[in-house]
Amino acid sequence: MLPVDLPGTVRDALLAPLVDHHCHGVRRDDLSRAGFELLISAGGVPAPPGTTHFDTPSGVAVRRWCAPLLDLEPHAPPAVYLARRAELGAGEVNRRLLAGAGVVAFLVDSGREDAGLLNAAEMGRHGGAAADELVRIEEIERDVAATAQIAVDYLDSLGEELAGRAARAVGVKTVIGPLCGLDLDPARPARGAVIAAANRRLADPKEPLTDPVLLSYLLWSGIDVARERGLPVQFHTGYGAPGTLPDHLPDHLPDHWADHGADHGANLWAGRRADPAGLGRFAAALQPLGVPMILLHPYPFHRQAAHLAGAFPHVYVDAGLALPHLGAGARVMDELLELAPFHKQLFSSGCHGLAESGYLGALSFRRALAAALATRLDSGEWSTADAARVAHMIGSGNARRIYRL
Amino acid sequence: MLPVDLPGTVRDALLAPLVDHHCHGVRRDDLSRAGFELLISAGGVPAPPGTTHFDTPSGVAVRRWCAPLLDLEPHAPPAVYLARRAELGAGEVNRRLLAGAGVVAFLVDSGREDAGLLNAAEMGRHGGAAADELVRIEEIERDVAATAQIAVDYLDSLGEELAGRAARAVGVKTVIGPLCGLDLDPARPARGAVIAAANRRLADPKEPLTDPVLLSYLLWSGIDVARERGLPVQFHTGYGAPGTLPDHLPDHLPDHWADHGADHGANLWAGRRADPAGLGRFAAALQPLGVPMILLHPYPFHRQAAHLAGAFPHVYVDAGLALPHLGAGARVMDELLELAPFHKQLFSSGCHGLAESGYLGALSFRRALAAALATRLDSGEWSTADAARVAHMIGSGNARRIYRL
Amino acid sequence: MLPVDLPGTVRDALLAPLVDHHCHGVRRDDLSRAGFELLISAGGVPAPPGTTHFDTPSGVAVRRWCAPLLDLEPHAPPAVYLARRAELGAGEVNRRLLAGAGVVAFLVDSGREDAGLLNAAEMGRHGGAAADELVRIEEIERDVAATAQIAVDYLDSLGEELAGRAARAVGVKTVIGPLCGLDLDPARPARGAVIAAANRRLADPKEPLTDPVLLSYLLWSGIDVARERGLPVQFHTGYGAPGTLPDHLPDHLPDHWADHGADHGANLWAGRRADPAGLGRFAAALQPLGVPMILLHPYPFHRQAAHLAGAFPHVYVDAGLALPHLGAGARVMDELLELAPFHKQLFSSGCHGLAESGYLGALSFRRALAAALATRLDSGEWSTADAARVAHMIGSGNARRIYRL
Repeated sequence: MLPVDLPGTVRDALLAPLVDHHCHGVRRDDLSRAGFELLISAGGVPAPPGTTHFDTPSGVAVRRWCAPLLDLEPHAPPAVYLARRAELGAGEVNRRLLAGAGVVAFLVDSGREDAGLLNAAEMGRHGGAAADELVRIEEIERDVAATAQIAVDYLDSLGEELAGRAARAVGVKTVIGPLCGLDLDPARPARGAVIAAANRRLADPKEPLTDPVLLSYLLWSGIDVARERGLPVQFHTGYGAPGTLPDHLPDHLPDHWADHGADHGANLWAGRRADPAGLGRFAAALQPLGVPMILLHPYPFHRQAAHLAGAFPHVYVDAGLALPHLGAGARVMDELLELAPFHKQLFSSGCHGLAESGYLGALSFRRALAAALATRLDSGEWSTADAARVAHMIGSGNARRIYRL
Repeated sequence: MLPVDLPGTVRDALLAPLVDHHCHGVRRDDLSRAGFELLISAGGVPAPPGTTHFDTPSGVAVRRWCAPLLDLEPHAPPAVYLARRAELGAGEVNRRLLAGAGVVAFLVDSGREDAGLLNAAEMGRHGGAAADELVRIEEIERDVAATAQIAVDYLDSLGEELAGRAARAVGVKTVIGPLCGLDLDPARPARGAVIAAANRRLADPKEPLTDPVLLSYLLWSGIDVARERGLPVQFHTGYGAPGTLPDHLPDHLPDHWADHGADHGANLWAGRRADPAGLGRFAAALQPLGVPMILLHPYPFHRQAAHLAGAFPHVYVDAGLALPHLGAGARVMDELLELAPFHKQLFSSGCHGLAESGYLGALSFRRALAAALATRLDSGEWSTADAARVAHMIGSGNARRIYRL
Repeated sequence: MLPVDLPGTVRDALLAPLVDHHCHGVRRDDLSRAGFELLISAGGVPAPPGTTHFDTPSGVAVRRWCAPLLDLEPHAPPAVYLARRAELGAGEVNRRLLAGAGVVAFLVDSGREDAGLLNAAEMGRHGGAAADELVRIEEIERDVAATAQIAVDYLDSLGEELAGRAARAVGVKTVIGPLCGLDLDPARPARGAVIAAANRRLADPKEPLTDPVLLSYLLWSGIDVARERGLPVQFHTGYGAPGTLPDHLPDHLPDHWADHGADHGANLWAGRRADPAGLGRFAAALQPLGVPMILLHPYPFHRQAAHLAGAFPHVYVDAGLALPHLGAGARVMDELLELAPFHKQLFSSGCHGLAESGYLGALSFRRALAAALATRLDSGEWSTADAARVAHMIGSGNARRIYRL
């Protein structure tokens, strides 16, 4: 499982159970080849004629690493892999892969209710692990907007819902980045502006929320709740993976962009505004509050995220890589260990839709960290004791401390 | 030639003839040392007193890899190399280096007519390969602007010229990036605005075209022609190489910048606006049309380009590196194989001015891909069959499919 | 000391004395653990409860590499290291570490007078090396603003002070990047605008200078002096290190940001506007003057800086890495050797506050360059003679030429 020989204590630390501090539910039903291919691709659209999403870094990783857990040879052809997957059934496949990840606790962003995905408790049961919830504030807003009639009720309900859901959660999560960019104004919006924005919002509650004033108000409300309850706040940054995007986006991006391009799709896909460097001012404004900010899957801006994690005492960086960026693991791990404090890095699988992504997320993290530590041990730059200690910190220790598990 | 031992099938795939999907003509005349040095440098200006452009990654590569094709020892001193080059004569040197590249087809952007450069047919003859043309739309516009009297004629002629040239070409190319940046408005410009812009243009047709409205109209006209004829559209992105820039730029950048800095030189050299991530919205607008977009030499923004290639079914990424960025080959290849679908990557040499750049482009591609595949085979992450298949896809298969060769 | 075996001439070139073309004074007093931890961290604030700044790439490097110079085992625990440091006393520790760096000349930016830091002459004495001064223009402006009464006196004094200080210096340095961003308008500000800005400035001379007009005037004044005296101008770029920031920033960033975020802290920390790519237009405007521009510690934007160094005859790139980015050395060195002309790269330690940073800066540079050259020699891409020559150029030769040492 590990690509290199390591001293026993380091090896044990790498193989110890992980805390997966950011994942989503996986599909409970059997998947067609078309459905499976969409879930391993970055775009959420079919591959061009004559090609297949299996000819991607993700596709190769699934065939190489997941096939053996389904009793197949490594590199099994896609058709063979999917046939065996159907033969075993989604339940068994999910159990094998999630349990194979070697995770002790899943922190699950269940996003919008979706009966097709395992919920947090089910993720735990399938993976033989504990499971806790993350509150995605934009999902709460969607529910409130659908029912509220007038601005004051809308704002009151937002506060109540946030407080209620946070009481049962271990962390708060925001996807404000894809919705209006990460270069956030650090000032709290004025009450009057919020009321006005709320009224506009209620006039068309079905639309995705992209109003910066209301999104900023929502974020600050989430931060206040997080502060009261001592919870960290997770920020969606970087290119992420399709599953980590607001649920309403992937389906109809192009039309959508025609309208909201500048604030929306451009930043979402083009990714320039997904650079967490844009959060610098906001991070500074948050520093006095002491609410931990966690920068999720910042790739390919992980160096910028690592710099912020080193510059601010309350900023943390996700050291995990979700599909479809899994393949970059070794390089990213090296670049994080070059830059970020070791007590500021956290593992996540970014698991979504496919149990394969949970298994591969954990496996690639362990393999990448193993390779990075072996290099440092071989050159004599690190001691064995430090390597083992840091592996424990990033794999689970930091998450236990920050999420108070 | 390859830096590592590989299984026979993989080795054969790497040594198989390549389709060079983007190159320019090389100089037909013998070159002075000053002239040669300008062509291996990034700036197109002489090296500072007491220094030489041979003390660059490009200069070292020429001495190491091209010297043997001129019957010299590797690492021959610059003076020796240039003396032998003159002795053999440009014709023989061009034949040896272009043939040495092992290319089966050159797709040539001949840019502005320049009798000093080999044209497409001559590139093919010297290289013992087929050759096809790419239509650079901004060059067509220059010719039309020089002759048209009134806006409607100008617009009509543009359409006719584009259609005529495209009928004899395998692809359309735009350098709109260096001219007004890649963060393009995805909307087609309104007819009225285009007429007004055309009139401004005809008032001063000698100036480089930097009007965003007219450039956008020109691009959409090129896209319409490409769609009718089933051709892909190549976008100049990244830092590129001197030769790939619009011909009128390098000479008088500084003055030029004083006037157009923000839209022009800044983006050209500073490169921040050369980030293909800026094309996200435009790519989304193009998706329904099904016209392939190819992101040329995106370095150092290749991770962003690879992400777009994974996110959009019609976006492709150039896996070649032109001088002067050749040296980054191994790292760039690794980063592309981590991120981009294998059926979305294409080889090019970015050859320009010097036949050395054609030879080195092919050589460094093969060496970089060989190293990247060897790593994946040694770790057991890839199968030999996949490695050989992917080498064929990137080296020639994808180009044959997309350009319908 | 070097991580790899190399031919004798290359080894000798790597171990030859270095010119450290950019460093600051180190603390002359004994340091508490709290004080020491602040100086090895990127943020200049204490580590979160339950953590330590020793659990960082910098902390590990200090324990591994500096401990032996203090007669300790590699990887000595932090408490043991600091106890031994106190036992020996700051004077002895500074002598051992600065002399251990193997530097023949320190070019020192003494910034604001600070009796707690060794001055240039003292740095030289402790390190057994020559020492010269760099003039930081923003520090001169602060002194002038504190005393001048009216705008004309202020401007006259600026010119006199700059000329006087430059007469005793080997280079001019600006930190305009962190103060108003690097995307500088290349035009000289108009006299009227400067007078008006000077009057505003004198109304509140205690505030940090963030007025773009006045900063631009100050920079051009520094450039004029540099041109007269044949001095290069150093630009603070990239994330830098805490010590390289304008002295008034680190203490009260958050409040400060609430006011000047957009122009100030955001660019300072977030770093996106610290990308030297933004200097493209300014570099073009400076090209005709022939004043060398040196891009200091551009990490993580070193590829962009390397590109500018290749594109402009008067632009140079710093190949050194200061704490806390030391760990990235090997990768950064590789990326610079892939892109930048070898006669455009310069070593610096970015030493500041801790003599450890001077020693580690030199050590990590030698180790990173050794590894990069070994790779190129093993693959046959470089000749031994070229490797030795380039090591001398980057380590000291280029600096001797540019600074006329």
